Amino acid sequence: MTVALHDAATLDAVDPLAAYRDAFVAADDESIVYLDGNSLGRPPLAVADRMTQFITESWGTRLIRGWDEGWFEAPLEIGDRLGHLVLGAAPGQTIVADSTTVSLYKLIRAALAARPDRSRIVIDRANFPTDRYVVQGIAAETGAQVDWIDTDPATGVTVADVAAVLGPDTAVVVLSHIAYRSGYIADIPAITAATHAAGAVVVWDLCHSAGVLPLELDAWGVDFATGCTYKYLNGGPGSPAFLYVRAEHIPTAVQPIPGWMGVKDSFLMGPDYQPADGIRRFISGTPPILAMMPLSVSLEIIEQVGIDAIREKSIALTDYAIELYDQILAALGVTLSSPREADVRGGHITVDHPEFPVLISSLWERGVIPDFRPPTGIRLGMSPLSTSFTEVRRAIVAIGEELIARTERSNL
Amino acid sequence: MTVALHDAATLDAVDPLAAYRDAFVAADDESIVYLDGNSLGRPPLAVADRMTQFITESWGTRLIRGWDEGWFEAPLEIGDRLGHLVLGAAPGQTIVADSTTVSLYKLIRAALAARPDRSRIVIDRANFPTDRYVVQGIAAETGAQVDWIDTDPATGVTVADVAAVLGPDTAVVVLSHIAYRSGYIADIPAITAATHAAGAVVVWDLCHSAGVLPLELDAWGVDFATGCTYKYLNGGPGSPAFLYVRAEHIPTAVQPIPGWMGVKDSFLMGPDYQPADGIRRFISGTPPILAMMPLSVSLEIIEQVGIDAIREKSIALTDYAIELYDQILAALGVTLSSPREADVRGGHITVDHPEFPVLISSLWERGVIPDFRPPTGIRLGMSPLSTSFTEVRRAIVAIGEELIARTERSNL
Repeated sequence: MTVALHDAATLDAVDPLAAYRDAFVAADDESIVYLDGNSLGRPPLAVADRMTQFITESWGTRLIRGWDEGWFEAPLEIGDRLGHLVLGAAPGQTIVADSTTVSLYKLIRAALAARPDRSRIVIDRANFPTDRYVVQGIAAETGAQVDWIDTDPATGVTVADVAAVLGPDTAVVVLSHIAYRSGYIADIPAITAATHAAGAVVVWDLCHSAGVLPLELDAWGVDFATGCTYKYLNGGPGSPAFLYVRAEHIPTAVQPIPGWMGVKDSFLMGPDYQPADGIRRFISGTPPILAMMPLSVSLEIIEQVGIDAIREKSIALTDYAIELYDQILAALGVTLSSPREADVRGGHITVDHPEFPVLISSLWERGVIPDFRPPTGIRLGMSPLSTSFTEVRRAIVAIGEELIARTERSNL
Repeated sequence: MTVALHDAATLDAVDPLAAYRDAFVAADDESIVYLDGNSLGRPPLAVADRMTQFITESWGTRLIRGWDEGWFEAPLEIGDRLGHLVLGAAPGQTIVADSTTVSLYKLIRAALAARPDRSRIVIDRANFPTDRYVVQGIAAETGAQVDWIDTDPATGVTVADVAAVLGPDTAVVVLSHIAYRSGYIADIPAITAATHAAGAVVVWDLCHSAGVLPLELDAWGVDFATGCTYKYLNGGPGSPAFLYVRAEHIPTAVQPIPGWMGVKDSFLMGPDYQPADGIRRFISGTPPILAMMPLSVSLEIIEQVGIDAIREKSIALTDYAIELYDQILAALGVTLSSPREADVRGGHITVDHPEFPVLISSLWERGVIPDFRPPTGIRLGMSPLSTSFTEVRRAIVAIGEELIARTERSNL
């Protein structure tokens, strides 16, 4: 390769978002190179104080009155903020609650219920395990059949892949927007339109896209969507998921886990389940108020920066990672398992090498923290708000050094 | 009534648990009389610092490594601590995850799956709304039939009530241990035995009993149980539920929301769902690690005090509330809707009066915070660790004063 190697320090110096690294705990700790913010984002610096304030003031002194003073509406209110800042969703279609897995279960069941005369579910084999397991479970319990799409594992699902399996009995298509391994971006508008043309509805898993690139769920015609908030949305380990249902589906939507917090009047405690008119009907149990606090803080940062600027830096980071791959790793036999074209590439890339399953622990020991994805992938996740170009460079140099060291040892 | 009125200050002075009030935020704030700890318990004082430590150290600097360093096991480990200290459950049968509603859904579905040749679900009409709605929803989706028990609303479900509806087609019985309105304690051992004798299994909702009286799930033969952790377990608003499955059921148990965190090897990311051998199979999505922190702290307090001492004070508090009711409220036309006998009475009592729906807001305005339960109930919840006898006295005096004031105004 003859591409000149950009200087990481220069890229950091001209990075318009560089100052936002200071908004996160320990992001300036040079003993760690953290390239796994797409698995667990760093805590915003303001979270600890905000949590203390919440515990000592809201929970501690308002006590049960907190429910009347905002908590009851919090899952919808934070959902609307997320909808506005991140999802491209008008108010009244998004809640924050449950885990992504539980949300997927509710949405796929609701999607099937919306097409009662159809019984086939489409999903791809490269989808995240939870998505596949939930679909398999729902198929087993409802008698639905699954149409599996085989995609090129290095890329992701295309509209042609989906169109090839859509049929008159297709009820619902379940796909991830950004492939968790390759980082490939599926074409939501085109796949959603093709699905609708076949009379089916689509459930989009946005785990790897929410917070790292602009989404336009309303404009794209998306029916149902969910995703986690602990990756690019910095909600903390096991923070609750978000769940989106297109306005037109809500009045007739049926979800399988009816609960007292999702009814017209929770404190009437009536004899029969009367679902709330709006998106509240998708709430089951008491919403995780305390666990939403970090997300609420990180949305303030996203509001300041704007999702377009985040996407711009995300592309610069992954472009730079690929430039370094070409310069350092390609010659060492490492393959790039992610798209080179920025417009179909999310916020992470995966590189593969047969030595990576054993090499990953050496990286972690030296404080270089990417993720490992079987069978042989190292996944480099770059959180635009908290990752520096220097970190990207140090990670890829470290991978190269470890590979060379292993080769030298095996040649002795 | 000729019972002498105990002096609240004296009762507080001799209360062996009085010092533990200092272990909770703002419990010494005399401007508030808080009798709703059975709806939302106070935060333990240590929670804010522990949360800050977790955010800045565990999440902030260990980052994704936290999953390898304890978080992955946390739902089981905190579950085991809860099992030991609160539930009477040997290790390996309890997890902390999801909301109570989602847990109920999983357990009732698992219970039905354990009795595939039967199709009837037994539940009582006085059960908490979520329990009833979940049963109705599952019946609608599976074709199961519901046998409704009508109980005396002032008490609760008895073994005779259950025996009267059990039959050869009964698959599962769904009941609350302590009635959310009356505080009546159902006889878990007898009802569980009767259910087993009929060949069915039982799902116990422990929301109003966990943390306020000794439970012996293993000894009582309980099959499945769940409950929330934000009441007497002080986990914070919307904190995750606990879920118990008896060891003998686990190897064959099927729950309806399979997820990647509940399989044999989460990071294998295999093609098919292979449930973990143990209780982990009931985990669906990524567990709410941050949201478990307060519960972890409050379990330390329970470990110091012991559940027997907690129950002893709980009985003293409710005995005293009934003594004050007799002295002050009975003559004002208020009815007692809870048992007088301590052995069948949980940690709260409910009193009813036609004026209570309007009177409750006057109480809240003067800083006296019980709960309201329709149609005409004021529910007085007493958290043994954080409620004083003085608070009980002030609450009942305040109810009496407000009733008298309303009567005087209406006589003008």
